[in-house]
Amino acid sequence: MTTGSADSLSDVRMRGFARRTPVAEALAWLDRQASRLPEERVPLAEAATRVLARDVLSPVDVPSFVRAMMDGFAVRGADTLGASPYSRLELDVVGESKPGHPFAGTVGPGQAVRIATGAPLPPGADAVLPVEVVQIEPCRLLAQGEVSPGKHLGLVGEDIAAGTRVLSAGRVLRPQDVGVLASIGMPDVWVVRRPRVRIVVTGNELLPTGSRPEGCRIVDSNGPMLAALVARDGGLPELSGIVPDEPEAVLAAMRPPAGAPPDVLVVSGGSSVGQEDHAAALVARHGQLPIHGLAMRPSSPTGMGLLDGRLVFLLPGNPVSCLAAYDFFAGRAIRVLGGRSPAWPYRRIKAPLARKIVSAIGRVDYLRVRLLEGRVEPLAVGGASQLSSTTRADGFVVIPQDSEGYPPDTEIEVHLYD
Amino acid sequence: MTTGSADSLSDVRMRGFARRTPVAEALAWLDRQASRLPEERVPLAEAATRVLARDVLSPVDVPSFVRAMMDGFAVRGADTLGASPYSRLELDVVGESKPGHPFAGTVGPGQAVRIATGAPLPPGADAVLPVEVVQIEPCRLLAQGEVSPGKHLGLVGEDIAAGTRVLSAGRVLRPQDVGVLASIGMPDVWVVRRPRVRIVVTGNELLPTGSRPEGCRIVDSNGPMLAALVARDGGLPELSGIVPDEPEAVLAAMRPPAGAPPDVLVVSGGSSVGQEDHAAALVARHGQLPIHGLAMRPSSPTGMGLLDGRLVFLLPGNPVSCLAAYDFFAGRAIRVLGGRSPAWPYRRIKAPLARKIVSAIGRVDYLRVRLLEGRVEPLAVGGASQLSSTTRADGFVVIPQDSEGYPPDTEIEVHLYD
Repeated sequence: MTTGSADSLSDVRMRGFARRTPVAEALAWLDRQASRLPEERVPLAEAATRVLARDVLSPVDVPSFVRAMMDGFAVRGADTLGASPYSRLELDVVGESKPGHPFAGTVGPGQAVRIATGAPLPPGADAVLPVEVVQIEPCRLLAQGEVSPGKHLGLVGEDIAAGTRVLSAGRVLRPQDVGVLASIGMPDVWVVRRPRVRIVVTGNELLPTGSRPEGCRIVDSNGPMLAALVARDGGLPELSGIVPDEPEAVLAAMRPPAGAPPDVLVVSGGSSVGQEDHAAALVARHGQLPIHGLAMRPSSPTGMGLLDGRLVFLLPGNPVSCLAAYDFFAGRAIRVLGGRSPAWPYRRIKAPLARKIVSAIGRVDYLRVRLLEGRVEPLAVGGASQLSSTTRADGFVVIPQDSEGYPPDTEIEVHLYD
Repeated sequence: MTTGSADSLSDVRMRGFARRTPVAEALAWLDRQASRLPEERVPLAEAATRVLARDVLSPVDVPSFVRAMMDGFAVRGADTLGASPYSRLELDVVGESKPGHPFAGTVGPGQAVRIATGAPLPPGADAVLPVEVVQIEPCRLLAQGEVSPGKHLGLVGEDIAAGTRVLSAGRVLRPQDVGVLASIGMPDVWVVRRPRVRIVVTGNELLPTGSRPEGCRIVDSNGPMLAALVARDGGLPELSGIVPDEPEAVLAAMRPPAGAPPDVLVVSGGSSVGQEDHAAALVARHGQLPIHGLAMRPSSPTGMGLLDGRLVFLLPGNPVSCLAAYDFFAGRAIRVLGGRSPAWPYRRIKAPLARKIVSAIGRVDYLRVRLLEGRVEPLAVGGASQLSSTTRADGFVVIPQDSEGYPPDTEIEVHLYD
């Protein structure tokens, strides 16, 4: 060790961040950078939960033929005029129409064709006489009731008329939407491309997932957590493996040579202003790092910028800070790139505070909480290094920059992790 | 056509279902049949959103070593006693401890080791003197403040103590849970096996997904919709392709010869009591069909039973009925088999009715609705054949069996499709 390096460390730590950017300002910058990715075509079998990139107009009428809405007999309504249980009218049964197997001929005056629900109405007929008002005899029927023309028919285009806008761009496709797209004859559909997110985890002290912690080394938890978060937000995560705290290695991991280029870089560790914080220095040197250091707790050593024209998020290595910084910024960008709502995917509830919360003005706080008997209990936890606090928590509350906190019993909004 | 078959059709339609099972009774039967599937082991990278099958106890302390919680110098606290800006105490700087690179020696009296946040505390030291209260000189430092033993240290097991139950069986794994599992050295995890769901779509009138509707044939919408619903509920869908309305073909599709046997069968079409309704007749003959015909609208021609020891759901071919019957029964079973909550995955809100709703006592109604200016507007839709009604709808309301409906302005619970 040289005193020179200790001096520079001291120097930097005494200064810390020259200025901490307010969260709202960082979000405003982010929202100017992040816009929807281009579209791609996917088969219907893969379309559910994807985001529709274009309006879909139906090229066809659904149904494309007049069909029976009841089981019965296709008839000319006029032939049943006056029929009743006391005055039964005879019709000749000349055939059958079943779904997928229409009657080949035409229904003439005095004739009837047996028809099942959903089957095409044969030419010549204009109504369905329900089976309930029919007495069936060999080769004929006796109508015991009237049916007016048009009755018990499903009309052409009744479900969807040709030219109708069936679904609008931006729609997150639901199971039934996929069904509707199938019914109008779509083999595939234009959706917003999923953002490819490269996750770079840095740290000499880290062992890869699946290792046993050993000696002074700890197992990386941010990589698998970030991959799951990215997938939740509709992105395609790609993990770099553990990258040592060396500038060349970190830069190489942020600029992978082969494969499809990522849309977003998410870097864990090295995001602060110390001499080992290579990621921040590299992005500032090789790209832009307009946001570095945030007025929030945890996660103040967070950076955001551009490298090779793509968004890069520098997240603190401490797992809770990493989670909060991802959720505030990276997740938002990934959702917007994928055509989704920028809003958090967490369910929200309102509940009263069990105890007071104290927060400093000028800083956004991200506070893990439990719900106990319907009341919000802030977790008494240590620092941002304790990821287990986020698994013990039911969710979190956000205390805005201009708030000093809240007294007990304040109704407060909780974002639920589940 | 023979009069014999027309007679039997008439006969059956006039009778309809001998009895319509109340929805609550069908659910009670279902809940007696459906239980959690066995567990399987998956790598952590695939664990998010899966259901934990066993409690997880940590085999290790996290962290497993005492670490610095601030940047500064590892010292013996006693050596700093009395230090202040006006009475600076000198310590020899003998080395450095960085995360992943501990100091190899021991800190003796009068010595200090430069230490970074997260790095292991060297033997001999018992506190971290923050860099902010240090003046650094060549090879030595001047302490300008005191630090008591134990200060600024993260202790062994502070995040997770060995033997602690980290997560409980039944947990749907969140991103941060996967991080915690990684941090305790788990390479993989026991989760509930995902239910394999075979989807059999029957109907001579149906064309496979991707076809253009043509003549009197319509494109199957239930197959792709059901596959998406099964995936949403944590199941693994397997589509049979379109099966013609012939008993041998339907039976063969319900009993696939090869591959992993399904846990659940979901059959679309042929679920009623007509002569073309082969699925119901086959399950009754080759298995058990204790529930057939339900007191609900739509979806009354729904059946539930067992075939070859596995649950089989006979869903109506009409798409809206198919969706509702899936959601009421098949989806519930698939979630329970997968270790999930039986509850609907739909977000619920309460809002006032814009217009009255009328329902028949003795029947559960599933009503598609829109939300217009915060009020619940029942959709004026035709029959259960119009799937587009479920894409135009924002959600649905359920009117219980013992209700005649509700007047305008009643606060009513809406299940949101999104």
